[in-house]
Amino acid sequence: MADYNAPVKDMKLALNQIARLTELSSMPVFEDASDDMVSAILDEAARVARDVVGPTNWEGDQTGLKLDESGVICPECFRDAYNQYAEGGWGSLQFDPEFGGQGMPYLLSVSVMEMWQSANMAWGLCPLLSQGAVECLSINASDELKSIYLPKLISGEWAGTMNLTEGGAGSDLSQVRCKAEQDGDHYRITGEKIFITWGDHSLTENIVHLVLARLPDAPPGVRGISLFLVPKYLVNADGSLGEYNNTKPLSIEHKLGIHASPTCVMGFENSVGYLVGELNRGLACMFTMMNNARLGVGLQGVAISERAYQQALNFANQRIQSPAVGHKEPGPIMRHGDVRRMLLTMKALTEAGRALTYDACGSIDFSHHAEDPERREKEKARAALLTPVVKGWCTEFAQEVTSLGVQIHGGMGYVEETGAAQHFRDARILPIYEGTNGIQALDLVGRKTLMDKGEALASLLEEMRATVAAGGAFSALAAQLEAAVVAVEQARDVLLSGSAEDPQLPGAIAYNFMMLLGTVAGAWELLRQAESAAELQSQGEDDPYLAAKQVTTRFYFAQILPRYMGYLEMIKSGSATITEMSDAQYASAWQ
Amino acid sequence: MADYNAPVKDMKLALNQIARLTELSSMPVFEDASDDMVSAILDEAARVARDVVGPTNWEGDQTGLKLDESGVICPECFRDAYNQYAEGGWGSLQFDPEFGGQGMPYLLSVSVMEMWQSANMAWGLCPLLSQGAVECLSINASDELKSIYLPKLISGEWAGTMNLTEGGAGSDLSQVRCKAEQDGDHYRITGEKIFITWGDHSLTENIVHLVLARLPDAPPGVRGISLFLVPKYLVNADGSLGEYNNTKPLSIEHKLGIHASPTCVMGFENSVGYLVGELNRGLACMFTMMNNARLGVGLQGVAISERAYQQALNFANQRIQSPAVGHKEPGPIMRHGDVRRMLLTMKALTEAGRALTYDACGSIDFSHHAEDPERREKEKARAALLTPVVKGWCTEFAQEVTSLGVQIHGGMGYVEETGAAQHFRDARILPIYEGTNGIQALDLVGRKTLMDKGEALASLLEEMRATVAAGGAFSALAAQLEAAVVAVEQARDVLLSGSAEDPQLPGAIAYNFMMLLGTVAGAWELLRQAESAAELQSQGEDDPYLAAKQVTTRFYFAQILPRYMGYLEMIKSGSATITEMSDAQYASAWQ
Repeated sequence: MADYNAPVKDMKLALNQIARLTELSSMPVFEDASDDMVSAILDEAARVARDVVGPTNWEGDQTGLKLDESGVICPECFRDAYNQYAEGGWGSLQFDPEFGGQGMPYLLSVSVMEMWQSANMAWGLCPLLSQGAVECLSINASDELKSIYLPKLISGEWAGTMNLTEGGAGSDLSQVRCKAEQDGDHYRITGEKIFITWGDHSLTENIVHLVLARLPDAPPGVRGISLFLVPKYLVNADGSLGEYNNTKPLSIEHKLGIHASPTCVMGFENSVGYLVGELNRGLACMFTMMNNARLGVGLQGVAISERAYQQALNFANQRIQSPAVGHKEPGPIMRHGDVRRMLLTMKALTEAGRALTYDACGSIDFSHHAEDPERREKEKARAALLTPVVKGWCTEFAQEVTSLGVQIHGGMGYVEETGAAQHFRDARILPIYEGTNGIQALDLVGRKTLMDKGEALASLLEEMRATVAAGGAFSALAAQLEAAVVAVEQARDVLLSGSAEDPQLPGAIAYNFMMLLGTVAGAWELLRQAESAAELQSQGEDDPYLAAKQVTTRFYFAQILPRYMGYLEMIKSGSATITEMSDAQYASAWQ
Repeated sequence: MADYNAPVKDMKLALNQIARLTELSSMPVFEDASDDMVSAILDEAARVARDVVGPTNWEGDQTGLKLDESGVICPECFRDAYNQYAEGGWGSLQFDPEFGGQGMPYLLSVSVMEMWQSANMAWGLCPLLSQGAVECLSINASDELKSIYLPKLISGEWAGTMNLTEGGAGSDLSQVRCKAEQDGDHYRITGEKIFITWGDHSLTENIVHLVLARLPDAPPGVRGISLFLVPKYLVNADGSLGEYNNTKPLSIEHKLGIHASPTCVMGFENSVGYLVGELNRGLACMFTMMNNARLGVGLQGVAISERAYQQALNFANQRIQSPAVGHKEPGPIMRHGDVRRMLLTMKALTEAGRALTYDACGSIDFSHHAEDPERREKEKARAALLTPVVKGWCTEFAQEVTSLGVQIHGGMGYVEETGAAQHFRDARILPIYEGTNGIQALDLVGRKTLMDKGEALASLLEEMRATVAAGGAFSALAAQLEAAVVAVEQARDVLLSGSAEDPQLPGAIAYNFMMLLGTVAGAWELLRQAESAAELQSQGEDDPYLAAKQVTTRFYFAQILPRYMGYLEMIKSGSATITEMSDAQYASAWQ
């Protein structure tokens, strides 16, 4: 199995040339984020990811989890990796120094988080969820709750979870039945939650559950849901741990992948809970966490694609088979055109997705820290528009990339011990959790486009046109990008002009709309990177990576971007063929 | 978990209106294959598939396999299913009555085989491999070997295997090292083979291994490989079983899917083997088996797609979530546009693939039984051209379809007990075995197109143009098909005109060429079916299936066919961007 090596050069190009880290670093609030500091952080994280976390990936998958009376038992090797993660302060990079954070840009933490997700996605979900809990509490919790819970969550001594879903109600949160009853200055929570990632474990001494529940007199539907902080162990006034709070993992799921990430059915029984935010406004609080979580899942798509690519590249270099065209002797399968096509598809999609994800995350930082309030609003809308594209498109291509990773291995790829299959299995959760990609697509066409009449999208397309206009050394590619931008505009016009008359239209075209925008935005980000790489070369930087980026970009434009033509045609054909079939006709071939 | 119901109506339309079963049935050799007989066979096979084989699928996956001193131990429920299969004579449909076969068209057996593969793909590999062994021996073996082995293989009392691959040499058969030494009128075989599907088991009392091996003085490379029949137990003169022949399963693989199909490392030690065909012509003999086996794997792609579709449809009808557009109350997720899009994508690809696969298999029958020798040649070339498309395209879309099956289930799809994930795991072997899809694509552009200067392809495109010209009730779709046929012609011209100058071109464009032809051919088959369905309706047949077929066809043309545009663009951009990157650049982001 190949080691994981963080693609630090590509991360830096995406951070600096696309996501504007250099601009963030020039702000007083981020004065510590100097070039040297960023490099030192990335290099050290890369080392921990390669030497400490990465080696636990396969062992974790094969060991899996157990549940007994004491709770969930994780693979033993996870504990050491987690301790090194916590002791290294890796969970605190982007958080408020008031609570022990390092005050770095969120964007920088995204690169580091990518490394954990590449190194071991099942393990990496624990830090990912904890960081989401920190974000949610930072924004919504009372000062008292913050002072008790944030320092330990930020240091990694405690972990956090998200408890939304209940049995029979996956994407539909209006059905939440979990009960909260007032009991003095706190509440008592009773009910069951399902699909709770890292719902229980012993990596940390305490677990902070964020739980959606409903008061007896709350209005029905989503307007009657409140958010509660429910710790596994109560916290005494002196900060020490007190009583067990009846947060019990009732069972764990037997899943296709991420075998070492406990997916729990959680039972709460009269558990003490503290209100987070306002009563009946729980969904809004949860959303502050969910948006970044969605970017995090898109990032996981990039991360697992990178890992699958490295694994496949390693195999393609080592596996000897029949002579390739132009060769007389057997040699590495790397020499075959179709294998190169597969590797380049993996590489190009991954790098495009990385740039797009970082770009969206950069906007999150600017939406908080830009001086000009109008700019903050614009960056917020930009991040909001890109979020479902990052989540949807990057996790869709992660399916393709991890599947190509299996394919390059041939028969060995189907044998579990090779490791390629694990990435394929692990990746399959990504289009599902944190809102299925169907829901992301609806969010993109509905809340993010129809609701503002396409304004945020128009801004993004203007940015793309500016890249086209700048022309630069890649005029042929710029012309291709322009045609693709026109395609997005045509798709947008179909959506904006047709949705009032045809209420089925947005849902019918949503998925292709998301894939179209992702594919075109990916091309745009790569073109910008290729231009930056050429510029750096012309300034005398001599690194094969800079040449490779330009080749990768040409490959993407030739071999991936053309997909947009199909997506546009599908969008143009509207909802007619999707709504035409009656329910009974679906089963008519055998009934 | 949903039952499997054979889509008999769709099978019949594909058999009769596409693959010309009615014409075959009118031949004296197939006089028994009357309409009534065909219906009776399909209905009874459907019952066995639903009630006997189908229920073993999940249990087999979860039970898996064991290997001990006695050999491979299969799930207990497989034995009863296999016995009913053998006793029902299901393995003998298409074979020669001289050896106990029923003399039915091969084409009809393909429909029945599809049912076993839908019902339980892991189990179904045992009959599939045995039928391949029968075909190979029927064509290549001596009369004596035939009289001893064929009757028991055809009756299903014995099973057959294919032993090609050796360690370190997957697709490259020139590396075969397994040794054969003459010993009187037979040979002694010694060596190891890997990835041997159903290499050992106890479903049958004997197993007939077909083994590629090399004589000590044989020429190097593929011209020194011979084929041997190596039984697990020797057969006495009276037909009873004799000594154990040292065909030992040394280990079984731990695989991503088809957990209940034993994939063995087989050891042969001084095992008695009988030469099949001529010395050093083993590869040619094996190819007689491999071509049909490739169609069989394409058929598995169709079959598992059908199963995944039925599972997802069942879930989409039962799963209640938020109100859909146009509804006020929560209802089945089936009502959501994006879920319908996913289900229709599954259905349309599956039905298109079924028609294309049956069509290719029909040509195999005509290549054997047509009166006119020239027509036999034409049908043979047609089947040869379609074989890599059926294997490649149908197994590629099976990845998409089984993944959509998981997606429709949401979080439940990631939980193994739901069953959707098994289809996804099982399907992943299909693009790999029987020649990876990269090899299929090379076969299509090389042996099947460049070698005859595009003649067979030109014939197929003529057939498509004839459908366009006939116009019928679907003139708008016919116009779309015509544009797509032009695209295939353009792609062919790129291939034929550019390959001499650029030897990297065929390999670089092969995959997209295969996908282009599959996507367009699928549209063509559906359009022909839609026309037949409309015609049958106009003759007074009143079945919702006939209307559904026309809706499915319109969906395919609107939502799937447009993919051809992207494939064509990628082909047009040639090999440049695929060959441009140096080996070192692939790893330059972290080195």
